[in-house]
Amino acid sequence: MNSLSIGDTIVAPATVPGTGAISIVRVSGPDCFRYADVVVQLKRGIISESEAYTIHFGSVPDLDDVLVSVFRAPHSYTGEDSVEISCHASRYIVEELVRRLLAAGCRLAGPGEFTRRAFLNGKMDLAQAEAVADLISSTTAASHRVAYNQLRGGFSSELASLRSELVEMTSLLELELDFSEEEVEFADRTRLLDLVDRTRGHVNRLADSFKYGNAIRTGVPVAIVGATNVGKSTLLNALVGEDRALVSDIAGTTRDTVEEVINLDGIPFRFIDTAGIRETDETVEQMGIERTFRKISEAEIVIGMIDLTADAASILDNIKMIISKVDFGTQNLTLCLNKVDLMDESDYNKIVSMINNFVSFINKEIVTIKLSAKRGFGVQVLRTTLCSLESHLIPNADSTFVTNFRHFEALQDTSSSLSVARLALQNGTPSDLVAEDLRRAITSLNQILGTDLIDPESVLQNIFRNHCIGK
Amino acid sequence: MNSLSIGDTIVAPATVPGTGAISIVRVSGPDCFRYADVVVQLKRGIISESEAYTIHFGSVPDLDDVLVSVFRAPHSYTGEDSVEISCHASRYIVEELVRRLLAAGCRLAGPGEFTRRAFLNGKMDLAQAEAVADLISSTTAASHRVAYNQLRGGFSSELASLRSELVEMTSLLELELDFSEEEVEFADRTRLLDLVDRTRGHVNRLADSFKYGNAIRTGVPVAIVGATNVGKSTLLNALVGEDRALVSDIAGTTRDTVEEVINLDGIPFRFIDTAGIRETDETVEQMGIERTFRKISEAEIVIGMIDLTADAASILDNIKMIISKVDFGTQNLTLCLNKVDLMDESDYNKIVSMINNFVSFINKEIVTIKLSAKRGFGVQVLRTTLCSLESHLIPNADSTFVTNFRHFEALQDTSSSLSVARLALQNGTPSDLVAEDLRRAITSLNQILGTDLIDPESVLQNIFRNHCIGK
Repeated sequence: MNSLSIGDTIVAPATVPGTGAISIVRVSGPDCFRYADVVVQLKRGIISESEAYTIHFGSVPDLDDVLVSVFRAPHSYTGEDSVEISCHASRYIVEELVRRLLAAGCRLAGPGEFTRRAFLNGKMDLAQAEAVADLISSTTAASHRVAYNQLRGGFSSELASLRSELVEMTSLLELELDFSEEEVEFADRTRLLDLVDRTRGHVNRLADSFKYGNAIRTGVPVAIVGATNVGKSTLLNALVGEDRALVSDIAGTTRDTVEEVINLDGIPFRFIDTAGIRETDETVEQMGIERTFRKISEAEIVIGMIDLTADAASILDNIKMIISKVDFGTQNLTLCLNKVDLMDESDYNKIVSMINNFVSFINKEIVTIKLSAKRGFGVQVLRTTLCSLESHLIPNADSTFVTNFRHFEALQDTSSSLSVARLALQNGTPSDLVAEDLRRAITSLNQILGTDLIDPESVLQNIFRNHCIGK
Repeated sequence: MNSLSIGDTIVAPATVPGTGAISIVRVSGPDCFRYADVVVQLKRGIISESEAYTIHFGSVPDLDDVLVSVFRAPHSYTGEDSVEISCHASRYIVEELVRRLLAAGCRLAGPGEFTRRAFLNGKMDLAQAEAVADLISSTTAASHRVAYNQLRGGFSSELASLRSELVEMTSLLELELDFSEEEVEFADRTRLLDLVDRTRGHVNRLADSFKYGNAIRTGVPVAIVGATNVGKSTLLNALVGEDRALVSDIAGTTRDTVEEVINLDGIPFRFIDTAGIRETDETVEQMGIERTFRKISEAEIVIGMIDLTADAASILDNIKMIISKVDFGTQNLTLCLNKVDLMDESDYNKIVSMINNFVSFINKEIVTIKLSAKRGFGVQVLRTTLCSLESHLIPNADSTFVTNFRHFEALQDTSSSLSVARLALQNGTPSDLVAEDLRRAITSLNQILGTDLIDPESVLQNIFRNHCIGK
């Protein structure tokens, strides 16, 4: 089934390399005890004769004192005999320990190969195996909970119940085939139609959740739009705040925009800084502004930054331009009225009431927040506003989000096979053809869980090549 | 004895933070089982009732599936009850797990506090505790072996045998005091003198080894000297070679020289690049050259780089200048005749025989190596030469090197107390005064092992503040 043999014994460091207290080297496979016994001398007894789930003190001659944890098949992470050797966290020791285990007969594990073995040995399905990498890389409460739910099998059991409904329908249709000469209909066509609709509805809901799942993994896209020097980067710094919750730059960010992911109360927001917009006749600048408009269309939330100290006419022009670019059907607009600290009271009252009048006249759902990004005033209100807009992203233990593009595609395939089946049922197509459509839907679901993979090696390679070594 | 209570229970991540396969959170102290039971739900049973040296599968609700390793006092690293919780290596999970253990009642461990407890609970002496940090940070075979020998107690047992000899002498002298009115001499003065001399010789040998021990830790200082553009940085790059064995820049390097540590066959060499030297009348340049000469005096090995394509007179001048700055009593000189690839054969033969004649006339031990740093020719010969000059730094299992300045100082104190005792013995000073000198020598040795620390808290703070958290 797979080109990487699972008959051999693999080794890899399982902890992050560097100078720390403890490092772990992991060995898994049928000969792991024998190889570990070559490298480690226990204080008492030998590893091969040790009981499962026990820890043993020993030494690797002239290298280090170690603890050896013993796991016996099938009760281990990989489902195979395994040992974990805990040594002092020095690169030198870890490298030398791995070298000796290789010399004893182990093979260096490929990326994610321990988890791959766990899947191949039936310890987890493919969706769970994929969740391991997501769990490790999750940096916010939201992304962690989605990955953990998937690892615990929440997503898998939902798919399994969908699958069993489809299998039942298919069986009924296939039963009819056995009696085809007698023109018996075991499966009530109206009831079948209803079942297909319900199942397809469920599949579509899961596929739709990918939008949220993806936002949880890569951050909710928020475009900050406004004239130059209106205080966009000051606002970003204020949002990051003293807790330095800045997550990281997202890989694959386009060169012409800066994207920062900030963790606000457990939800990752990906802030897309855009070029300043203003009316212009210059072609080059016009192109930059077009690009900004494209960025706005990719965002889920648009923050319009308004400089209250500008003159009234240009403030209104800016607001109009921002509003004209927002799709209120799918996007939220928050206007931040910045630099309140620089205003005297009467000017401030005049300009804010002008803006409020204008916004209420527009008759769209627009939040306005008074802000001094520089002094931190109003920043907490903005944080709260952003989080409440995305509160549906804080998953509870029951909710399932699809976070993986592979799963999303398979669900879309399932859905379209079900559409075809529905049409066939409506048109009175023979049951064997309808059954075939349903079987195709089942196969798509099976792809997610990893049962009957159509091209197993390439699927597994794709999935595990991005895992880290040792996992 | 110490300001950090050892009655409470401490927690810290024990693995290097980051995205990997496994992370470990370590908990130690009398309440560790109770606190861990609050945070982790085992699949079967509870941690408090688990046997020592067993591993248990469990989960931290809504966070992760974990393995818990149970250690019971005194058979643990710290000598206390301890658990190690192995979770998925995600910063989010590790931070949340530590947070929950803190909420359950643990205190966050200070740097090196687990090892500090191991010392305070008698699991290791102070020299061994210090070796833990050295072991973790060792990057070459030589530094690793010295640290490992010290951790295994090799250094400690050598000190213990010195100490017991001194204790025996002191007892004999003190026995005399009890009979002082009778003017009995239990301790033969000549034998005592001999014993003091032997002990002092041993102590001095250990103190002297600090020179080597320090070289092993920070790299053997090698000054590369020569005119500008003679190919010094090309040589460094060639020595680093394809295996990219470059260790790191040493902290505390002076700003005006570049120092690179290169691991050659397990020995770290610290290459000190110096400003080019030549005869000059300019004051500023003169100062730079003076600085170069100071650097040369700090080196253990001097590599004189000679550009063979220069004219014969200036080559000889350069060699003379280099030789005049080398102290052949303590330093080794290797002349690298560089750029052999740019010479035609007859010129090459002429100039090399001229150099050889001159060098043999000088009658000092000077190695000459023909080199093309650019083409890599002769570089392996230079590597081998450097390693054979420092082969004494490859410690065998028995040899002890003092690598720690604190130990070096204590050994010097021991030695001077013994000198005073020797003088007192020679001058027929009363035995109670001699005994006092010997007791002072014993106290100095005890400082190294950590018994009877004179100011324990400040000593421990100094030692452990540079350890990492979790160790």
